[in-house]
Amino acid sequence: MSIVFADPAALSHAQLEEGTVFAPRFDVQGLITAIAQDAAGRVLMVAHMNAEALRLTIESGDVHYFSRSRGKLWKKGETSGEVQKLIRLATDCDQDVLLLTVEQTGRGAACHTGRKSCFYRVLQDGALADTGEPRLFDPDAVYRR
Amino acid sequence: MSIVFADPAALSHAQLEEGTVFAPRFDVQGLITAIAQDAAGRVLMVAHMNAEALRLTIESGDVHYFSRSRGKLWKKGETSGEVQKLIRLATDCDQDVLLLTVEQTGRGAACHTGRKSCFYRVLQDGALADTGEPRLFDPDAVYRR
Repeated sequence: MSIVFADPAALSHAQLEEGTVFAPRFDVQGLITAIAQDAAGRVLMVAHMNAEALRLTIESGDVHYFSRSRGKLWKKGETSGEVQKLIRLATDCDQDVLLLTVEQTGRGAACHTGRKSCFYRVLQDGALADTGEPRLFDPDAVYRR
Repeated sequence: MSIVFADPAALSHAQLEEGTVFAPRFDVQGLITAIAQDAAGRVLMVAHMNAEALRLTIESGDVHYFSRSRGKLWKKGETSGEVQKLIRLATDCDQDVLLLTVEQTGRGAACHTGRKSCFYRVLQDGALADTGEPRLFDPDAVYRR
């Protein structure tokens, strides 16, 4: 019994924005932007999902994405062990972005660089400054590069 | 003296991910995804910026986006009064997403529906449930629809 998502084109503007029908607006490549945030409000990472990744995420409770660079479905943590458990899934007014609240398991590193969050640099006077986010794993060891 | 962003294609993978050079990776349409979050960690909205919107945001401190639906530069709050003041600008490991920490001025509504956040619905048992986020303005009055 697999989830089938409603077609957003079949909804009125009001239904899309104020209704109860979940009709994720995948783009022309079949992808939707997904933001993963922890319960404390820290944005961990941003990636994309296709319909299959979204279905598997909802059905299993483990977050799945679609890797644009590798062109394939990707269970978060399948290599690194940094599995994300879905706590809450929100969508925005026009249903073209998903906001996931997740529990970041493993060593707590959502980023492939080994850091908790991918957002470890901030703009200061025209250059990026590292916020000093520690590495929770060694990416060379984890990904055997 | 206008800001010119570095070309990400001129950077090595290590420079892009670990370096201090800000080289936002605009997509083939010249856009980059921008997430606006308040200081408390609430994700308010997700939109896109072109290079001009990003430059104006950094130079003026008022957040500018590029509206894909209207095909034009858009100073957030120009119609609604809900201006966003930039507090902090972070980017992710591969520099293809911007995470803005903003002060949402005006009535505090980032969403065009009048709500604080665009993420006012969560998935529950296959349908969207409204989280009960109040409207801080009447969109029909503000946008004169």
